[in-house]
Amino acid sequence: MCELLGMSANVPTDICFSFTGLMQRGGNTGPHRDGWGITFYEGKGFRTFKDPNPSCKSRIAELVQEYPIKSCAVVSHIRQANRGGVSLENTHPFTRELWCQYWTFAHNGQLTGYEQLDTGRFKAVGDTDSEIAFCWLLKQLDDKFPDTPDDWEAVYCLLAESCDTLRELGVYNMLLSNGEYVLTYCTNNLHWITRRAPFGKASLIDEDVTIDFHEETTPNDVVTVIATQPLTNDESWHKMAVGEFNVFHFGEQVFNRTL
Amino acid sequence: MCELLGMSANVPTDICFSFTGLMQRGGNTGPHRDGWGITFYEGKGFRTFKDPNPSCKSRIAELVQEYPIKSCAVVSHIRQANRGGVSLENTHPFTRELWCQYWTFAHNGQLTGYEQLDTGRFKAVGDTDSEIAFCWLLKQLDDKFPDTPDDWEAVYCLLAESCDTLRELGVYNMLLSNGEYVLTYCTNNLHWITRRAPFGKASLIDEDVTIDFHEETTPNDVVTVIATQPLTNDESWHKMAVGEFNVFHFGEQVFNRTL
Repeated sequence: MCELLGMSANVPTDICFSFTGLMQRGGNTGPHRDGWGITFYEGKGFRTFKDPNPSCKSRIAELVQEYPIKSCAVVSHIRQANRGGVSLENTHPFTRELWCQYWTFAHNGQLTGYEQLDTGRFKAVGDTDSEIAFCWLLKQLDDKFPDTPDDWEAVYCLLAESCDTLRELGVYNMLLSNGEYVLTYCTNNLHWITRRAPFGKASLIDEDVTIDFHEETTPNDVVTVIATQPLTNDESWHKMAVGEFNVFHFGEQVFNRTL
Repeated sequence: MCELLGMSANVPTDICFSFTGLMQRGGNTGPHRDGWGITFYEGKGFRTFKDPNPSCKSRIAELVQEYPIKSCAVVSHIRQANRGGVSLENTHPFTRELWCQYWTFAHNGQLTGYEQLDTGRFKAVGDTDSEIAFCWLLKQLDDKFPDTPDDWEAVYCLLAESCDTLRELGVYNMLLSNGEYVLTYCTNNLHWITRRAPFGKASLIDEDVTIDFHEETTPNDVVTVIATQPLTNDESWHKMAVGEFNVFHFGEQVFNRTL
C-alpha cells in the first residue's frame, strides 16, 4: 500500500508541516520505502519532485521539507510497490496534459485486470496499475469532452462513475488535480480536514513537531488537507466513505457524491 | 534569448560541472533571469527541476548543482523571456508522452507566426512560441508514426525537415530527448563537445572552477555536452552550422544532417 497527501487552499500555502509527517512514513514510521513524489501547482504550471529512493533518506525530500513552496493545489504520494518495479517511471504522481491543463494523479491501492483497460491515446510509460488507471480516466474525459468542458458538474459525475468502475478492479483511493480542483475518491482509506479561522495548534503523529496555524496564517485562509491516515493527533479528521467522491476548490469542498 | 545545455552519455553521469557554468548565466554573468529548468532521464522515467526565478539565486538550482544526479540524457534551459510571460507554465523544458516515451524539449530563439501552427491533440498549456513549436513537432511524429516506429532514421529525417520548417519562422535552436536519444537543431548558436579517454582538465568560462575529468571518469566513458555557447575555455568545441541536425546516443554522434 501507499500513502497519499493532497492539499487545496484559497491562498498559496506551503505543505512543509504535513509533508514532514508523511515523509517519516517513507521507511521510518511506515513501510513505504519504494519512492515518493510531490507535485505543486503554481498557476497553470507545476513542479514535481520525485525520487525512487525512500523519502526518509532523500536529499530532495529534505529540500521539499525545508523550502516552503507555496501552492493552492498539491498532490503527493509515498510508495510501497506492489504492481510495477521500483523505478522513476513508476513513481507517482503522474502528469498528462488534457484541455490545455496539466492533470496530476496519485493512487493508493492495488487493481487486478487493469491490463485490459483501453487507454486510447493516453499511453502509460511505466508498468503500474496506477498509471494505466490514470490514462484510462483521461480517455473517459477526452472521449466525452473532446474540448474543454463548460459544465464541470458533468465532468465530476463522469469522473465519479469512472472511479466506481476502477473500484470494481480492487482498492482504488485517488488524488487527482488540474491545478484548480483537487478531486478525491475513496475505497477504504482517505481522510480530510479543512482548517480555517479560528486556527489552533496541531501536533504530528509521526514526528515530534507541533505547529500553531494561528501564527502561520491570515484569518481568511481556508486550507484542506487530504491524507490516507490522519497526520495529526489533536484535530478531528473526516473519514471518507466507501465510494465517496469529493471535489475541493480553493480549500472548500464544492462537490460530494456518496453511494 | 536563452541558453541551452544538453548531455548524452554512455554511463549515468552527473552534469554538476556544466550546470554550474550555465547557472551563472542566469542573472550573474548572463542576462537570463526569467527562469530555468533541467530534466534528467533515469531509465524511462525523468525528473524535472524548474523555477521561474533566476537560476543564480535559486535554492533548487543550488541543490541540482551540489547533488550529483546521474543520467544518460539531460536537457536544460535558462530563460530570458521574449514570447510568453514569466511563469512556471512557460518555463522550459516541456515534457509530453508519445509512443509510451516521455519527450522533453527546450528551445532557444524566437518565432513569428507560430500561433498558426496546428498542434492537433498536443495542446500547449502556457503561451510560449516554444511550447507550441514542441506540440507541433510531436504532431508531425504522431501523424506519420501513429505507433512506435521501428525505422528511427525515418524519424530523424522527419524531425530534421520539421525543424527546417520551424526555422522559417525565426531563430530555432533546439534540444529534444526521449531519454535515449538527444537530438539537436541549430539556427545560429549551438556548440558541442565529446569527451572521451584520454581525459584532461577543463576550466569553466563563467566561474573559477576547474575539473580534472580523468579523476571523475573511467576509460570507457563517452560524454557529449551540447550548449548554446562553449562552457569551457580550454577545450575545442564544435560550432554547429545553420540548419544542422544531430542525434546523440549514449554519448556518440549517430546521425548528422547538414544543409
